[in-house]
Amino acid sequence: MEEKIRSLGSLHANHFSVHLHDVRLKTGEVSRRIKVEHPPAAAVVPFLDAERILMVRQWRYAVGRETLEIPAGKLDEGEDPPACARRELREETGYEAGRLLSLFSYYPAIGYSDEVIEIFAASGLTRASEERDEREISGLREVKLDEIYDLILEGTVRDGKTVLGLALLDLRRRRGDVPGDFFV
Amino acid sequence: MEEKIRSLGSLHANHFSVHLHDVRLKTGEVSRRIKVEHPPAAAVVPFLDAERILMVRQWRYAVGRETLEIPAGKLDEGEDPPACARRELREETGYEAGRLLSLFSYYPAIGYSDEVIEIFAASGLTRASEERDEREISGLREVKLDEIYDLILEGTVRDGKTVLGLALLDLRRRRGDVPGDFFV
Repeated sequence: MEEKIRSLGSLHANHFSVHLHDVRLKTGEVSRRIKVEHPPAAAVVPFLDAERILMVRQWRYAVGRETLEIPAGKLDEGEDPPACARRELREETGYEAGRLLSLFSYYPAIGYSDEVIEIFAASGLTRASEERDEREISGLREVKLDEIYDLILEGTVRDGKTVLGLALLDLRRRRGDVPGDFFV
Repeated sequence: MEEKIRSLGSLHANHFSVHLHDVRLKTGEVSRRIKVEHPPAAAVVPFLDAERILMVRQWRYAVGRETLEIPAGKLDEGEDPPACARRELREETGYEAGRLLSLFSYYPAIGYSDEVIEIFAASGLTRASEERDEREISGLREVKLDEIYDLILEGTVRDGKTVLGLALLDLRRRRGDVPGDFFV
């Protein structure tokens, strides 16, 4: 157990904030902790069919480069994770999800952030719009599962939630947790 | 591409800092971005034998609970990732690694942090010390691989790097990337 002694400062972005706290460790010592207070988020692995997924190209300011990821984003006020996954998929790719399957809910940066990401798989995709969010997404790419494992192992895909989504789908498939008609 | 216009403030913890920037999006609009500037980190899946790993119990201030994770930590100044993985394993568990295998290097929180974590598998463990870092670690637990997949699927293990380490080892095993004598 670590207890907050005092707050030394905060930063506020559009939808989340960061705090610097002095905390008392269980040994009695005092230390400093950064705490990112982040709304829950949802991510979605969109399956075009059993062997192909849809990924988004996106500029990431924090790492200073364009990345290849699955669609994801923060929950809006009052929104639940499945609704957020469907909305982000629609906004970032123009596709509407038919079926949605929850894969895993996890802490991406447990050392300094309270963010929780719930990852879904989506199938039965239908084209809903030709538009997508141009502020965030610079392009779409269809990738075969075989190819994406190569992109992961060679270091082209380095986004945690993307790799975790694929790994958890694989684990749940082997455990028989994925309905037989999910990809139909 | 997103360009920094100005810095609006910073917070400084022991070994990393957080900045709030106004940035210009590629559409020309101005937005606000949080950027955590974090040193690189290393994590390690410690194998007692081919079927059992060692995990640490740790209080996590950001999420307000005790968690079950693999050993991990930030690189010291001038330290490389394998040296960091060996040191964190020794400090958090008292074990020295015989063999070390790089599994994956990734961005855990690509939306707001530049942190990169390189995950290793370790084998050939030998007990080096009875001491461990009491400020961080409250206990050790030996877990069988079968059991840990249950802990992941039921939501007891929710730490991203821990699940990714196991998933990447599994992927590399299936690809034949893990030397036959690694677990001997």
